[in-house]
Amino acid sequence: MEPIHQSMMNNFNSLQHLEITREVHKVIPPPPRTTLAKFKTRLKETFFPDDPLRQFKGQPLKRKWILGAQYIFPILQWGPNYSLKLFKSDIISGLTIASLAIPQGISYAKLANLPPIVGLYSSFVPPLIYAVFGSSKDLAVGPVSIASLLLGSMLREKVSPTKEPLLFLQLAFTSTFIAGVLQASLGILRLGFIIDFLSKATLTGFMAGSAIIVSLQQLKSLLGIVHFTKKMGIIDVFSSVFHNTKEWSWQTILMGFCFLVFLLLARHISMKRPKLFWVSAGAPLVSVILSTLLVFVFKGQNHGISVIGKLEEGLNPLSWNMLRFQKKYLGLVLNTGLVTGIISLTEGIAVGRTFAALRDYQVDGNKEMIAIGTMNMVGSCTSCYITTGAFSRSAVNYNAGAKSAFSNIVMAITVMVTLLFLMPLFRYTPNVVLGSIIVTAVIGLIDVPTAYLIWKIDKFDFLVCLCAFFGVIFISVEDGLSIAVGISIFKILMQITRPKTVIMGNIPGTNIYRNLHHYEEAKVIPGFLILSIEAPINFANTTYLNDRYIEDYGFEEGMKKHSDLHFVVLDMTAVSAMDISGVAFIKDLKKAMDKRGLELVLVNPIGEVMEKLQRANKAHDFLAVDCLYLTVGEAIASLSSKIQPDTSSHV
Amino acid sequence: MEPIHQSMMNNFNSLQHLEITREVHKVIPPPPRTTLAKFKTRLKETFFPDDPLRQFKGQPLKRKWILGAQYIFPILQWGPNYSLKLFKSDIISGLTIASLAIPQGISYAKLANLPPIVGLYSSFVPPLIYAVFGSSKDLAVGPVSIASLLLGSMLREKVSPTKEPLLFLQLAFTSTFIAGVLQASLGILRLGFIIDFLSKATLTGFMAGSAIIVSLQQLKSLLGIVHFTKKMGIIDVFSSVFHNTKEWSWQTILMGFCFLVFLLLARHISMKRPKLFWVSAGAPLVSVILSTLLVFVFKGQNHGISVIGKLEEGLNPLSWNMLRFQKKYLGLVLNTGLVTGIISLTEGIAVGRTFAALRDYQVDGNKEMIAIGTMNMVGSCTSCYITTGAFSRSAVNYNAGAKSAFSNIVMAITVMVTLLFLMPLFRYTPNVVLGSIIVTAVIGLIDVPTAYLIWKIDKFDFLVCLCAFFGVIFISVEDGLSIAVGISIFKILMQITRPKTVIMGNIPGTNIYRNLHHYEEAKVIPGFLILSIEAPINFANTTYLNDRYIEDYGFEEGMKKHSDLHFVVLDMTAVSAMDISGVAFIKDLKKAMDKRGLELVLVNPIGEVMEKLQRANKAHDFLAVDCLYLTVGEAIASLSSKIQPDTSSHV
Repeated sequence: MEPIHQSMMNNFNSLQHLEITREVHKVIPPPPRTTLAKFKTRLKETFFPDDPLRQFKGQPLKRKWILGAQYIFPILQWGPNYSLKLFKSDIISGLTIASLAIPQGISYAKLANLPPIVGLYSSFVPPLIYAVFGSSKDLAVGPVSIASLLLGSMLREKVSPTKEPLLFLQLAFTSTFIAGVLQASLGILRLGFIIDFLSKATLTGFMAGSAIIVSLQQLKSLLGIVHFTKKMGIIDVFSSVFHNTKEWSWQTILMGFCFLVFLLLARHISMKRPKLFWVSAGAPLVSVILSTLLVFVFKGQNHGISVIGKLEEGLNPLSWNMLRFQKKYLGLVLNTGLVTGIISLTEGIAVGRTFAALRDYQVDGNKEMIAIGTMNMVGSCTSCYITTGAFSRSAVNYNAGAKSAFSNIVMAITVMVTLLFLMPLFRYTPNVVLGSIIVTAVIGLIDVPTAYLIWKIDKFDFLVCLCAFFGVIFISVEDGLSIAVGISIFKILMQITRPKTVIMGNIPGTNIYRNLHHYEEAKVIPGFLILSIEAPINFANTTYLNDRYIEDYGFEEGMKKHSDLHFVVLDMTAVSAMDISGVAFIKDLKKAMDKRGLELVLVNPIGEVMEKLQRANKAHDFLAVDCLYLTVGEAIASLSSKIQPDTSSHV
Repeated sequence: MEPIHQSMMNNFNSLQHLEITREVHKVIPPPPRTTLAKFKTRLKETFFPDDPLRQFKGQPLKRKWILGAQYIFPILQWGPNYSLKLFKSDIISGLTIASLAIPQGISYAKLANLPPIVGLYSSFVPPLIYAVFGSSKDLAVGPVSIASLLLGSMLREKVSPTKEPLLFLQLAFTSTFIAGVLQASLGILRLGFIIDFLSKATLTGFMAGSAIIVSLQQLKSLLGIVHFTKKMGIIDVFSSVFHNTKEWSWQTILMGFCFLVFLLLARHISMKRPKLFWVSAGAPLVSVILSTLLVFVFKGQNHGISVIGKLEEGLNPLSWNMLRFQKKYLGLVLNTGLVTGIISLTEGIAVGRTFAALRDYQVDGNKEMIAIGTMNMVGSCTSCYITTGAFSRSAVNYNAGAKSAFSNIVMAITVMVTLLFLMPLFRYTPNVVLGSIIVTAVIGLIDVPTAYLIWKIDKFDFLVCLCAFFGVIFISVEDGLSIAVGISIFKILMQITRPKTVIMGNIPGTNIYRNLHHYEEAKVIPGFLILSIEAPINFANTTYLNDRYIEDYGFEEGMKKHSDLHFVVLDMTAVSAMDISGVAFIKDLKKAMDKRGLELVLVNPIGEVMEKLQRANKAHDFLAVDCLYLTVGEAIASLSSKIQPDTSSHV
């Protein structure tokens, strides 16, 4: 019905004026609810925003049991409807990701300073567990680069993987166990929102920085250096590389270069044509086979090319007796488990959500956390280190046409066959090829277009991104991450500490009031100062608001324009919450305005705010009923008639 | 001009309908500004919201120098206009606060486990410094109870004040120096908003808890126990009290009881009649004199009454050579300096602001911080421990009619005379009287009415208050404080992580749209779902908003009521900021709505949000120009004519 055109308005001014005085709408407090009811709602919103029990409502008991079992084990949901057609698709995609998982598993285990076979173990048990508990159809689970890097580097700060390999392995399993417990607990306690504090900007910077750190570490195998630094920093690595030029092996460099080019080319082809996904998916396995053959035929190990060496045949040995919770290492494993757990969880959930959105189904974040957590807890007892949903492998899975979590089972069986019968074949696989595989895999983590978009849209977010990036490169992986998270949270707090307050004016010919600095046609109403505060009013910003409005500083600016000021109108539409300090601010503001002979008018406080003001008003009567209006327009109309009864219609 | 009454409306429906299509107001992006200009504004808002340099603008150079000197030394501002009349008032109030400061100084030094004379030293130099740098007319500075307690208890955790008294004293001075540096830096760097994170609820709980801890510690002197626990916790104290009943001394208890009743009575009288402020102000000194006489006459020290003992005559010795920054104790003094510095700063600033508001002048927070910081830095070099503006003493100062910081100088001179000539008189002052003085002073910190008000207005704030209270009592003073600050910040973050989203309806006969659950007369508009998000949209809440609106969960609720839904109207008035994740959310929401055949319409995005949406739109064209409206009313009017051209007027 709005707006009425000015010309029309004037015709009915006298009539309308009568109506106005009759028709000012009251701000009413929201319908009363008990503290308990409010508390319940808040609890529900905090922990159960997705209302997981809604499908159980009104079902018979037997159906409830079935639904419950399906809720815990999603395999019971898709399993019964599984068909031969789906099976065929899953076989193909399962074999494809297996061909990627085997070389990556070996490579990532080396990245984590663990024996290569642990990487294969970790590609066998966790996919089976995930197939039972997971709700994503596309996630391909296994070890991933960043979590491997973090696990390896954090543990290496305290324990040497070369001097005490058994202890190192034990601590890796223990950290994995703790990460799993943490992940499952976050899901069960419905605290999944904790990973929301890793913003897109943080992750973009962090991933790019980690990719560079990981790639630099590969210089060891790519150049064939034997005495390489144990530190991660960019400076340490470069000084190590250039102080050991004697150790460079041209055979290794040549081989590394050729396979790197081959792998990058394969990656490039698959990126250009998603249908040719199998080119990049198969390339690592082809490289491994080719390079192993080359070394075997030319006896490369005698020409300075280092090889993996003998690997044990057989399935995962049990490792629950290797978990160590002694006080001496407790801090270390807790810290490592926490950081790797959160990071791998973030990756797993993000990957799951991405592909779910592409295929238009839902993954339940909390359920996924429980699945990933269970997978790591069981994994840590069966010689697996930390695993999660990997982006690159899931993309291949998706492109290869996976239809359900069954493709994970196919992959696990393939890895099992490898573990049982094919291990001797890896004996002559050169480390340099594993390095090339890692570099090719992590290069995709450097996401320049996203960084550029962040720069275009939000400079502060870009700063966060840069901090994460340089923090990871120059300080350490964990510190870079914490710095970026800290800055992100600090930004949110700053927005609240320094809320935007704007002066509003009337857009001519309408009833609309908007920011004077934004809508330049907006006009100041003589006699009125219309302010809008765009943040919750609480302890973190009342001092600032006091400085602005109760003491003279900021207020002057608004005052100057109003020599004949009578009313200060405070639009509270955007004040989403208020605490005890906020109530005190309104009280003090009212007092300060009274002292200056100005009348303070509040417009449209929302339910919760209204309630608090009302309760405070009961204790200290400071707000008259007639200083509350539902819209700025009504306040102006009603008040301007008060000061200039004969001119109000010209507003 | 609003509202037009329904009956009137119908008469002009056809006419108005024409107008509507002509008169839809566009949302325009704000006037362009460079990144640098925006950055400057943000810097200014963050660090200079009070625009301290505004008075220098357009002044001649000489005047600028004078103003600059007056800015740094406020004494140059009020000094030249000082009159005999003001002088008389200041003499009276200065002597009054001195009579309070001397017994309190001695008592608080004992609370901090320091020699009593350090309390008097600290009442001499700091007031002189403050008189030069401070901008408050009412603040009476000196040692205060909570900072003394914190300093004493934090240092005692690592160093014993009885076994290594010299080291303890050195560490106390060093902590004071660090606190001063911190305070002054906060002021110079204009980071004063950091103390804003101590909310009223936190402080209420913290002060009450500290008061109880302090009072419990006084049981040592009130009961005359010799072997008292060195811990602060309530359980330790009570077990210590009841395991040492043999040490209770009836003479001490009797004396303590009498003076405690006397002091509390005096306090009660002054609270009932503020004009009789001198009753409570003089009572401590009277108690000290009376009790000292009693002990002297009856040789009380031979009857189990412990006395202060011999005190050195003379002014503050220099102590800059006692500052110890060795690595061994650096962590301890840094931590102690940080905590006591922040707490004493908070008290000082709050007290200054309170009395400034009563007398209607301004104190500049950052300037006060520099004053208090300088005072502590100089103090630490002249045998003073941490000092700040004390609430009780400032109240007496205010009631006694202090007119300027000169009353602090009068107090300092009185303390100086005491230090030079009257020290032997304190030899027989019993400790039990000092205990009574402390208990009486800290009882005022337990603010039950405020706690009750917090309970009435905001249950969550009350929880914060309780956490601070019980944390201080049962865990430790520092931990209680950090827990409460942590919860306060967590609450703010939670409000952002779980933003309120409301469904709005039309208030019949108007153009106003409000929360359906709040305004029960509001009506749903058929074909429309009108939503309002009341928080910034950023990385911390996009996952939640996704769950709510893009996936089906929360959205269903709103959908059910709308069998014939065509439009989803998102009112963004209260979205005060947006980051890159928020932009992605809007993009995804638009996509999800398109899939369901719904049209998404945005209403009134504010300047910054509009700008970001526009920039993102340039990269990925997702928002048509015609899906932006300035008010919900205009959106509904314009869109309803689209779907039901013949029924739109019945809205």
